[in-house]
Amino acid sequence: MTTLDHNLDTQTNVPAGEGFTAALRRDHDRLFEAFWAHPFLAGLRDGSLSREATLFYVGQDHQYLSAYLRCYGLGMAASPDRAWMEHFVDSSLFLLNDETHPHHVMCRAFGVDYEQVQHARLAPSSQAYIDHMMVSGHDSLGVLSFALLPCPWTYIWAGERYLQQVDPATAENNPFHEWWTFYGSPDSQQLLSDLLERCDQLAAQAGPAERARMARAFELSCYHEIRFWQMAFTQESWDDVPNEVLGSD
Amino acid sequence: MTTLDHNLDTQTNVPAGEGFTAALRRDHDRLFEAFWAHPFLAGLRDGSLSREATLFYVGQDHQYLSAYLRCYGLGMAASPDRAWMEHFVDSSLFLLNDETHPHHVMCRAFGVDYEQVQHARLAPSSQAYIDHMMVSGHDSLGVLSFALLPCPWTYIWAGERYLQQVDPATAENNPFHEWWTFYGSPDSQQLLSDLLERCDQLAAQAGPAERARMARAFELSCYHEIRFWQMAFTQESWDDVPNEVLGSD
Amino acid sequence: MTTLDHNLDTQTNVPAGEGFTAALRRDHDRLFEAFWAHPFLAGLRDGSLSREATLFYVGQDHQYLSAYLRCYGLGMAASPDRAWMEHFVDSSLFLLNDETHPHHVMCRAFGVDYEQVQHARLAPSSQAYIDHMMVSGHDSLGVLSFALLPCPWTYIWAGERYLQQVDPATAENNPFHEWWTFYGSPDSQQLLSDLLERCDQLAAQAGPAERARMARAFELSCYHEIRFWQMAFTQESWDDVPNEVLGSD
Amino acid sequence: MTTLDHNLDTQTNVPAGEGFTAALRRDHDRLFEAFWAHPFLAGLRDGSLSREATLFYVGQDHQYLSAYLRCYGLGMAASPDRAWMEHFVDSSLFLLNDETHPHHVMCRAFGVDYEQVQHARLAPSSQAYIDHMMVSGHDSLGVLSFALLPCPWTYIWAGERYLQQVDPATAENNPFHEWWTFYGSPDSQQLLSDLLERCDQLAAQAGPAERARMARAFELSCYHEIRFWQMAFTQESWDDVPNEVLGSD
Repeated sequence: MTTLDHNLDTQTNVPAGEGFTAALRRDHDRLFEAFWAHPFLAGLRDGSLSREATLFYVGQDHQYLSAYLRCYGLGMAASPDRAWMEHFVDSSLFLLNDETHPHHVMCRAFGVDYEQVQHARLAPSSQAYIDHMMVSGHDSLGVLSFALLPCPWTYIWAGERYLQQVDPATAENNPFHEWWTFYGSPDSQQLLSDLLERCDQLAAQAGPAERARMARAFELSCYHEIRFWQMAFTQESWDDVPNEVLGSD
Repeated sequence: MTTLDHNLDTQTNVPAGEGFTAALRRDHDRLFEAFWAHPFLAGLRDGSLSREATLFYVGQDHQYLSAYLRCYGLGMAASPDRAWMEHFVDSSLFLLNDETHPHHVMCRAFGVDYEQVQHARLAPSSQAYIDHMMVSGHDSLGVLSFALLPCPWTYIWAGERYLQQVDPATAENNPFHEWWTFYGSPDSQQLLSDLLERCDQLAAQAGPAERARMARAFELSCYHEIRFWQMAFTQESWDDVPNEVLGSD
Repeated sequence: MTTLDHNLDTQTNVPAGEGFTAALRRDHDRLFEAFWAHPFLAGLRDGSLSREATLFYVGQDHQYLSAYLRCYGLGMAASPDRAWMEHFVDSSLFLLNDETHPHHVMCRAFGVDYEQVQHARLAPSSQAYIDHMMVSGHDSLGVLSFALLPCPWTYIWAGERYLQQVDPATAENNPFHEWWTFYGSPDSQQLLSDLLERCDQLAAQAGPAERARMARAFELSCYHEIRFWQMAFTQESWDDVPNEVLGSD
Repeated sequence: MTTLDHNLDTQTNVPAGEGFTAALRRDHDRLFEAFWAHPFLAGLRDGSLSREATLFYVGQDHQYLSAYLRCYGLGMAASPDRAWMEHFVDSSLFLLNDETHPHHVMCRAFGVDYEQVQHARLAPSSQAYIDHMMVSGHDSLGVLSFALLPCPWTYIWAGERYLQQVDPATAENNPFHEWWTFYGSPDSQQLLSDLLERCDQLAAQAGPAERARMARAFELSCYHEIRFWQMAFTQESWDDVPNEVLGSD
C-alpha cells in the first residue's frame, strides 16, 4: 500500500481575498493528482482501458447519476428561491438528456448496447459514495453542494488537461476521445465556473460549523472519486474478501 | 359556525375493484363540494371576486407553488427509478413555465403587474398547508403524492365542471374566464388522469400503515384547499386576533 | 378583528454584547404579552377556565408533546457530539416522565381521568404548529432549536410572572395552582436558562442565512403558541367554516 | 480474493408461517458465518487479537455508536406512537450507559485509557456503514430498523455461540472474555428477541416495495459488519491506495 501522506484534520484556512473553493482546491491538490494518475483514467487517456473495466464503469456510473438526480431533488427541496430551483431543474435536464453521451461513447468503443451494460446493484464503493451524497443532502444546501462538486470538478479539470496535452495522433486513435471532448469542452468549463461561483456564495453565507462540514463533504467526495476509478478498475464486488486475511484464520 | 358533520376517524375502505383514489374521492365528496361552494371560487365563477382577494391569492399562491416545487424535489429524492424522476422534472418544468398563466390572467383582470403582487411572507393557512406537504414529503413517496394530489384534483375537477355548466354569455364577460379554461382544458384532464394512475399504483404497493397515512395526508390537503380560499378571501394575517376573545379578558 | 401592528419583515439586529435570544425576546415582546393576555391563560390565572377548554387543551397538548419528542429525535440525528445527544435524551425523559404532571393537575381539577381526554386527531392550529416544528427539524439543529424554544420560554416566563404577582388567597383557591408552580419552579427556570445558552451558542456559530431562518422559526412558534390557546379556547375543529362566508355564496 | 458465491438479486421469499427476520437470517447465513470466521473475531475468541487492531476498533466503534444514536433519533422522529418513542429513548440510554462496557474491557486488556483511543475521523468502511444507516433512517421506520438490526444480531448471536463452545481454560485466560459475556448474556438475548419481534411487526405492516428495501438494507448491513472487522483488522485509512494499481500507471 502507498500511503498518501496527509493530515485529515488540517483546517481549511481561507486567506483574505481567496474563495472557499479555491482554498479547498489548493488543500486537496494531491487528491486531484491521484485522480488523474489512477490507471483507470490513464487507460482512458491512451485508449488501453479494458472492456471489462469500461463497461463496469458505465453500469455503475448510470446508477451513480440516478443518485445524483436524487441529490438534485434534495437541493430543490432546500432551495431558498426559484433561481436555485431552476438551477436544479436545468441540471437535472442536462443530466437526463446530455450526460448519457460519454456513456454511449464508451459502449460504442466496444460495440455494446447501452442497455446491455446496466447494473441492478451498486458495488461497495459506488454505494458508499452515493450514501455520502445523500447524507450530505439531508444536512444543508451548502453541504450538499460541496459533496456534489468534486464529480464535475475532477472530470472537467481532467478533460481540459487532457485536451491541452494530448498528441493529435493519439487523439485520433483513442476510442475514448469523444469522452474527453465532452468533459473538456468550453460548455463544461462554463458549467464548472457557474458551480464554483454558487458554492463560493454558499460558503460566504455559512457559519464556521457548516463551513467545516462543507469542507469535509468535499474532501470525502474527492476520495470517493478516486475510489470510484478503483471500483471500476477492479470490478469490485460485495463478495470480495481478501485471501490474506481470511487465510490467516 | 357551520359544522360540517363528519367523523374524521372513518376508515377508508376500498371495495374490490375500486381504486384507492376513487375511494378517497367518494369519502371526501363533501370537501370537494365545500371547495366548489366557497365564495372565493364563486367569485371566480361570476367574475365578482374583489381585487383585494384576487391579488392576495396570487401573491400567496406564487409562494405556495414554490413550496410545491420543493416537494417535487423531495419526490425526486424518493424516486425508485428514472421514470419517476423524469415525472418530477417534467412537472417542475410545467409549474415553472405554464402554471404562472392563471396568475397572469388574474393580474390582467385588475391591470396589475405580476411582480407587484408578490408576497415575502406566507399567511398562516398557506404556511400550514406548505408545512403539511413538506412533512409528508419527508415521510414517503406515497404519502407525499397523496398530500400533493388535492391541489390539481380540486382545480381541474372544478375547471371541467365550470366549463360544462357556464352560460356562454357569462363566460364572455367573466374576466377570469381564461383561468377556468386553463384548469378545465383537456390537457389538464390528461395530467390529472396520469396523476391518479400514479397514486393508485403507489397505494397498491403500500402496506396498511402507509396507506392510512396516505389517506390522512389527502384528507388534510382537501381541508387545506378550502382554507386557502378562506385565507385569500379574508386576506388572512398572523396578526388577526379575534376581538370577541381578547375582549373577554 | 384586532390587528397587532407589526412589520413581519423587520430584521433582527443584535447589538454588540447582546445574545441572539435576548434580541429575539425584545423584538417579540408584544407576542409574549399577547400570550399572557389570552383569555385561556387568564382563565388559568383566576381559576375560571371552562372544563371544555381545559380538557380539550390536555388532549391536544398530549399529541403536541408527542410531536415534540419526534423533534427531539430530529435534534439527536443532527447532534454534532454526544453532549448534544445526551441533552436530547435527557429532555425526552423529562417530557415522558415529568411533563405529564401539569396535564394531571388539569384533569384533577375536573375529576377526569387522563386517559379519557386523549384525542386521536390534532385540531388545525395544533397540526400547523407541529408541522412547523417538524419542517424546522429537517432544516438544521439551529433552526429546530429556535422553533422549539418559544414553548418552554413562554410557559416558564409566564409561570414565574404568575408566582411573583399572585395573591396568596387566589392561589389557594385556584384549582390550577400546581400547573403554575410546575412551570414557575426554580428547576424550570434553570432548564430555560440552559436552553437559552444552547440557542445562543448555535446562533453564534450560524451564518446570516441560517440565522434569518432561526429568527423566522422562533417568531412563527411565538404566533403558534398564541394560536394554540385560541385553538383550545374555541375547541377548534377542521370542520369549522365561518357562516358569514359560506352564507354569502 | 475469495469470492463468496452469491446472487445478490435473490428475492427473499417468506414461506407461510415464517417471520420476515427468520427468512432473512436463513438467506444470509453465509454472511453470519463470514462474520464469525473473520480473523478479527477469531482473535477475540482466542485472545490473540493485536493491540493495534483492538484499539483501532474501539476508536472507530465509539464513533459508530454515536451514529447509531443519531439513527435512534431518526427512529424517534418516525415513531407512530409513544411506545415506539420510549423504545428509542430506552435504547439510547442503554447505548450511552452500558454499551461502553465492552470498549472498556478492550482498553483494559492493553492497559490503555478509553479517552486515549478516541478517533476524530471515521475510516472509509466505518463511514460507509454509518452513511448507509443514516440514508435508511431517512427512508422509513421499517427500512431503518432493518438497517440497524444486523449489528445487535451478529454480536449477540456470536456471543451466545462463543459461550456455548468455549473451553473454560481458554475463557479464564482470554483478556476479552468479559467482552463475550456482555454480548452473550441472557439480557442481550432478551434485547435481541424484542428487536426481532418489532422488526417482524414492521415487515408485516409494510407493502412489497418497502419490504424489498428492508431486505436490501439488512443485507447491506450484514456486509458492512464483516467490512467493519476488516477495517479494524487492517487499520484502514482513506489514504490506502493499492500499490499494484498505482504501480501499473
